[in-house]
Amino acid sequence: MKNEVLLSIPIEKSATSKITNVDFENLTFGSIFTDHMFVCDYKDGAWQTPQIVPYGPIELEPSARVFHYGQAVFEGMKAYKDEEDQIWLFRPDENFKRINKSSKRLAIPEFPEEFFFQGMKTLLQLEKDWIKKGIGNSLYIRPFVIATQGSVLASPANEYRFMIICSPAQAYYGGEVRVKIAEHYSRAASGGVGAAKAAGNYAAQFYPTNLAKEEGYQQVIWTDADTHEYLEEAGTMNVFFRIGDTLITAPNDDKILDGVTRKSVIAVAERNGIKVEVRRIKVDEIVKAVKDGKLKEIFGSGTAAVINPILGFGYKGEKFELPKIENSYANLFKETITKIQHNEAEDPYGWRYKV
Amino acid sequence: MKNEVLLSIPIEKSATSKITNVDFENLTFGSIFTDHMFVCDYKDGAWQTPQIVPYGPIELEPSARVFHYGQAVFEGMKAYKDEEDQIWLFRPDENFKRINKSSKRLAIPEFPEEFFFQGMKTLLQLEKDWIKKGIGNSLYIRPFVIATQGSVLASPANEYRFMIICSPAQAYYGGEVRVKIAEHYSRAASGGVGAAKAAGNYAAQFYPTNLAKEEGYQQVIWTDADTHEYLEEAGTMNVFFRIGDTLITAPNDDKILDGVTRKSVIAVAERNGIKVEVRRIKVDEIVKAVKDGKLKEIFGSGTAAVINPILGFGYKGEKFELPKIENSYANLFKETITKIQHNEAEDPYGWRYKV
Ligand SMILES: Cc1ncc(COP(=O)(O)O)c(C=O)c1O
Ligand SMILES: Cc1ncc(COP(=O)(O)O)c(C=O)c1O
Repeated sequence: MKNEVLLSIPIEKSATSKITNVDFENLTFGSIFTDHMFVCDYKDGAWQTPQIVPYGPIELEPSARVFHYGQAVFEGMKAYKDEEDQIWLFRPDENFKRINKSSKRLAIPEFPEEFFFQGMKTLLQLEKDWIKKGIGNSLYIRPFVIATQGSVLASPANEYRFMIICSPAQAYYGGEVRVKIAEHYSRAASGGVGAAKAAGNYAAQFYPTNLAKEEGYQQVIWTDADTHEYLEEAGTMNVFFRIGDTLITAPNDDKILDGVTRKSVIAVAERNGIKVEVRRIKVDEIVKAVKDGKLKEIFGSGTAAVINPILGFGYKGEKFELPKIENSYANLFKETITKIQHNEAEDPYGWRYKV
Repeated sequence: MKNEVLLSIPIEKSATSKITNVDFENLTFGSIFTDHMFVCDYKDGAWQTPQIVPYGPIELEPSARVFHYGQAVFEGMKAYKDEEDQIWLFRPDENFKRINKSSKRLAIPEFPEEFFFQGMKTLLQLEKDWIKKGIGNSLYIRPFVIATQGSVLASPANEYRFMIICSPAQAYYGGEVRVKIAEHYSRAASGGVGAAKAAGNYAAQFYPTNLAKEEGYQQVIWTDADTHEYLEEAGTMNVFFRIGDTLITAPNDDKILDGVTRKSVIAVAERNGIKVEVRRIKVDEIVKAVKDGKLKEIFGSGTAAVINPILGFGYKGEKFELPKIENSYANLFKETITKIQHNEAEDPYGWRYKV
């Protein structure tokens, strides 16, 4: 593999570990971080020597561009431990490619492949006790890049920081999810940054999502900003619809994030003989299908929950509930992908990556 | 005035001043900051006691939400000093209202009016030596809010920091500006956050602006993301077109920032008997007008340069140049507004605000 370069990352070890204070049975997503973090600065036109240091606060100028102009992108990945204490990642090359695609769109310099992989592997080996065995348990990995240059000129920065921080995670149970289909607000413009994991895309969704919550929904499924007639994706998940026995999901374009879980679901479906249509989907088609009793499932796909079944949706003042279903596609995909991730099943796709 | 509440802000003075090291004749925009800054934290559901402290780096958790989800908004204002050493702001109530409008759209708690005004006035009085007399000189003021809570859960933070930092500025000469009219990329979605001064809106423009620069343009004028047929605004300026003797500018909607300079230009135009049309403008209309010799001026309006004349534009591979013009509207507006700002002319509008 191209990324097997033998770069050795300097490590400054933390004097103590927080691990003994952590209740691994009661984790809140994304709030506790491991003892170390990976840091690499960009200046003078180049990424400098990366290093691993004790996890802790960082110092930035109040004028750092990330605060003012949102030059920031990130990734979300997970590490898993199998019964033999081996550590695995799931398709990390996809996340690597995607963070650089996001960076490019935000005028951030791309990050070197060997820094990314060596940094992550070195960090994970150091933090291996934080990765717990068992389906559902994982270490959530958050690579991100921020513009650090201290200047409020509205132009791309010439200094950046790339970091990786890690947070132990349990099986993510999102609760019963019902979604509001967006009729007024939108997430992304065509020609915009929707396909990038750009920080600003997320804050933009909070207010409309709060409004949906007030109406009793947990999330929003976004529609095209232009007509609100076509379904796009949810806040942190791509979305699939099962009409009859056909699985339908929107195509990737410059508005929709190219989800790693999404493309894995499509591959698993095809291997299992399930018909998949990747095409634009009208809200009306879904409404008609639910009324005709043909809409059997809706689910979201994403790194956090793998698959998140959606039990109902609201649109133009009407509320729709999906029928209960045995042998759901959602379960099939969740089980297949989760078992591959935890090295509990064959991996005919070559997705597992040993740390 | 409602904001004349007598709140006294605790001040921690900096031991030394950087001012003697600053070459006020050769300032780069937004790179040097004054000796102090205003800071106010939000936690436990309330904005805490604001304070003024020495300007310096801030410490944040690497998991602070601003880095990951772009929950950040800002404002841009200027303070001016007249020949009697009096300090003036220009329509600061507009910036106050706008930052809270931006905050609301990004699910950030709104900031109290008295904190904003007392904080700014106290800070400006402390930094008065940094404000230089003379048309063109000013102290650029950057209020901003960032989400500081350390957690990578994709939802609104429960901790924020509101800050004001100040940077001395000279007359902003943008150089000769020719713009590319956007045909593919876009700045804002309808139903999105374009009307907010949200950090993420700016990073989103850097890459397409770089592409325009490679083609020899300095800036981009954005068009609607849907059809690219209608003109919207530039990166940090609203845009006006003069066809014959009529001034035309796009209406404010949820995609276009409601510029303080824009609304001031409209008021000055109307007072000077210039016909103003606030309506959607097709790119084709501008192309036809320039071909017919009827397009007399294009200019941008914004706090940085007040008025920035645009000498030409590119669209669908064609380049258009505007004729040289005597007695331009651009000059009239720039002079009128600048003189009011510096207390060198009557202010029939009530825009000047004494610090
Ligand atoms: C906007 C958005 N869509 C979809 C996804 C799902 O992508 P993935 O399956 O790569 O996690 C995510 C999160 O990761 C996301 O942020
Ligand atoms: C996107 C955008 N449009 C327009 C403007 C001009 O607004 P104002 O005149 O209030 O400075 C700005 C900057 O301030 C801006 O950032």
